[in-house]
Amino acid sequence: MASAGRKRKLIVQKYGGTSVGDIARMQNVAGRALAAQKAGNDVVLVVSAMSGETNRLLKLVNEITPRPSEREQDVVVATGEQVSVGLVAIAIQTQGGKATSFLGHQCRIVTDSTFSKARIQQIDGSRILDVVKQGHIAVVAGFQGVDEHGNITTLGRGGSDTTAVAIAAALEADACEIYTDVDGVYTTDPNVAPAARKLDRISYEEMLELASLGAKVLQIRSVEFAMKYRVPLWVKSSFSDDPGTLVCEEDATMEDLVVSGIALDRNEARISIRDVPDRPGVAAKIFGALDDKAIVVDLIVQNPPLGGKSDLTFTVGKADLTKAHDVVKKVSKELGAGDISTDQDIAKVSIVGVGMRNHSGVAARMFRTLSTEGINIMAISTSEIRVSCVIPSKYAELAVRALHTEFGLDQGAKKTKKAK
Amino acid sequence: MASAGRKRKLIVQKYGGTSVGDIARMQNVAGRALAAQKAGNDVVLVVSAMSGETNRLLKLVNEITPRPSEREQDVVVATGEQVSVGLVAIAIQTQGGKATSFLGHQCRIVTDSTFSKARIQQIDGSRILDVVKQGHIAVVAGFQGVDEHGNITTLGRGGSDTTAVAIAAALEADACEIYTDVDGVYTTDPNVAPAARKLDRISYEEMLELASLGAKVLQIRSVEFAMKYRVPLWVKSSFSDDPGTLVCEEDATMEDLVVSGIALDRNEARISIRDVPDRPGVAAKIFGALDDKAIVVDLIVQNPPLGGKSDLTFTVGKADLTKAHDVVKKVSKELGAGDISTDQDIAKVSIVGVGMRNHSGVAARMFRTLSTEGINIMAISTSEIRVSCVIPSKYAELAVRALHTEFGLDQGAKKTKKAK
Repeated sequence: MASAGRKRKLIVQKYGGTSVGDIARMQNVAGRALAAQKAGNDVVLVVSAMSGETNRLLKLVNEITPRPSEREQDVVVATGEQVSVGLVAIAIQTQGGKATSFLGHQCRIVTDSTFSKARIQQIDGSRILDVVKQGHIAVVAGFQGVDEHGNITTLGRGGSDTTAVAIAAALEADACEIYTDVDGVYTTDPNVAPAARKLDRISYEEMLELASLGAKVLQIRSVEFAMKYRVPLWVKSSFSDDPGTLVCEEDATMEDLVVSGIALDRNEARISIRDVPDRPGVAAKIFGALDDKAIVVDLIVQNPPLGGKSDLTFTVGKADLTKAHDVVKKVSKELGAGDISTDQDIAKVSIVGVGMRNHSGVAARMFRTLSTEGINIMAISTSEIRVSCVIPSKYAELAVRALHTEFGLDQGAKKTKKAK
Repeated sequence: MASAGRKRKLIVQKYGGTSVGDIARMQNVAGRALAAQKAGNDVVLVVSAMSGETNRLLKLVNEITPRPSEREQDVVVATGEQVSVGLVAIAIQTQGGKATSFLGHQCRIVTDSTFSKARIQQIDGSRILDVVKQGHIAVVAGFQGVDEHGNITTLGRGGSDTTAVAIAAALEADACEIYTDVDGVYTTDPNVAPAARKLDRISYEEMLELASLGAKVLQIRSVEFAMKYRVPLWVKSSFSDDPGTLVCEEDATMEDLVVSGIALDRNEARISIRDVPDRPGVAAKIFGALDDKAIVVDLIVQNPPLGGKSDLTFTVGKADLTKAHDVVKKVSKELGAGDISTDQDIAKVSIVGVGMRNHSGVAARMFRTLSTEGINIMAISTSEIRVSCVIPSKYAELAVRALHTEFGLDQGAKKTKKAK
């Protein structure tokens, strides 16, 4: 997607809160940006607030009220990134480079007016390109934008990733590099499975499944954005020179691997309702009531009806369990359903891989592996490139390690080739 | 200067860093603004950064370099006021009011591009008036503006006072109230002279002399602005209901008082050069050389020449003394002048009053008072409404108290009427 006719490569580098957590780290970021520039690239930085700063600002707001005006809260929290861009620009200048900072309203990152979780609608990259052409490193505030009326908006947690990708798309950059405190995307959490391996490449689709399943490396919206605009996205460490992981379009070699990664999510709780009457509109009634209370339901499993009744199981975020239980109790009574049981001690383990499309028996292989380890599966859900199982939480690590080995992801293991 | 045809009064209230120093104080500010609104006024607030915040931000900048780009430093320090306006708006809303915050670029406080000490060129009050008409309290960030290219600028220390007066002028407000941690303008510093009395009224001209002489109540540029646009300016305490001091146009009653206030400045040092050749261009050479080094010279005294030579004495800020001494040594040598002496143990005491214009013998009365106390006068300078004397610093408090009594300013004293 590189812009035709441009001689130098244009790179957007995004540094998160940990990477700009203090002055010394900002100086490190400045040095990296200058090194990239000296290597022959035009460089645009996107930076987050210093780590802890957004929480400090939110705490001030919460000292006044737990339910602030979101417009005014955005005014307050947007300052975190503003401080960062000024300081990083000064750090670059102090190392002999040229730099200009940009706030959301200065490079026209225009969003809708949904304060605290605004969506980017348009970016005018011309002011950024003007200074870049003059040899400056542009330092852009992540996470913030401005609506059509000039109000300050913010993009929600992790929004700086989205800013970086959106700017890369608007400038037709050659690459977008997301610097973080890990050196890439791993096959699974190395704290859970020490044999976890860093991936050299992963497809957008796989990354989306992994991001939404709790791998905290990249903000999910930024991956969607990158996929939509075909921005090659690198995940790299700001503390090492490791090449990192490239998130990009799927290619043939990726399908050689049946499973690319394994995700673990411990933040869900299960609710089961026995003997739900099997008639039209019942599911709509239950999930409509949950939706009215803004409770997000993840996995839903319904057994085939037996005698006009069936059991219904679903998962919600642990934080919503009490609220969800209250809703379900009320609706179940109206419907004449049976007992309700809840369980917080669950975990959701998922295997993800574009190779699944061309491989049969992947799900069965997962179930068999869990069974061999004596792990009971409480619910299952699947997509084209993912299989998720809800299991008792005490088996979570064991399940991840067993699947990691089974699908050939362990360090030193030979990649699993296409089944014949 | 109230706008014709407007039914409700429009009041601009400015709260300094101490007045918004923590959440409880911000809630106090919100309460005061709402009370003013309920009393039948339209209210615009201008707020500073929370006390200590600007210094915290400057410290971050200085951790990188003592000589930062002023554009980028302004980006960083402007966040202090941004945090304040969001929080104060939320505090007003939490108390049941309506509020909208404005940053410099949102209400178009357009300045020149002199970063860190920009001057306001223009304010578009229409967006502020729009929300005020809808019953909102507008909460405007002090100290900051935006230049014609959209760069963030700041107005220099104390700039929030200037913002408040400029907005009051642009909106043709009925009054501009500057809230601070003292309850008005005093005849002199009460810490020096316990008999100091709060003034009910003082003219712009007198306030200007007092501000420039070290009375730290109001920023000097804000007083100039108020005088130029005839904005009635109140100095009030944010911690009491005292009516405060009105800074306004001079009227006849003010002239009844010979002296309105006494200022003390301990931040200057004296340099004297003996036997300076009395020929054209000598003064230009000395003060030109000081100006080249950006050293501000305050008071200058030259004795009448005797035998083709004269003694020259002047004062500079204490911080500049070493630098000034070096410059003077070099230039004196070139000119063939005599010994140079310096003295840091000096103080400048000034009496200020518009009444002086119509009274003779005021300066003589000052000199006599100091002489009676055994205080030697080292240099003198005067303006139409001011007489300043440089004296040994150890006599500073004594001089202030003696002059305070002599000119009838002590609490309970009868005002000195016009001399016949």
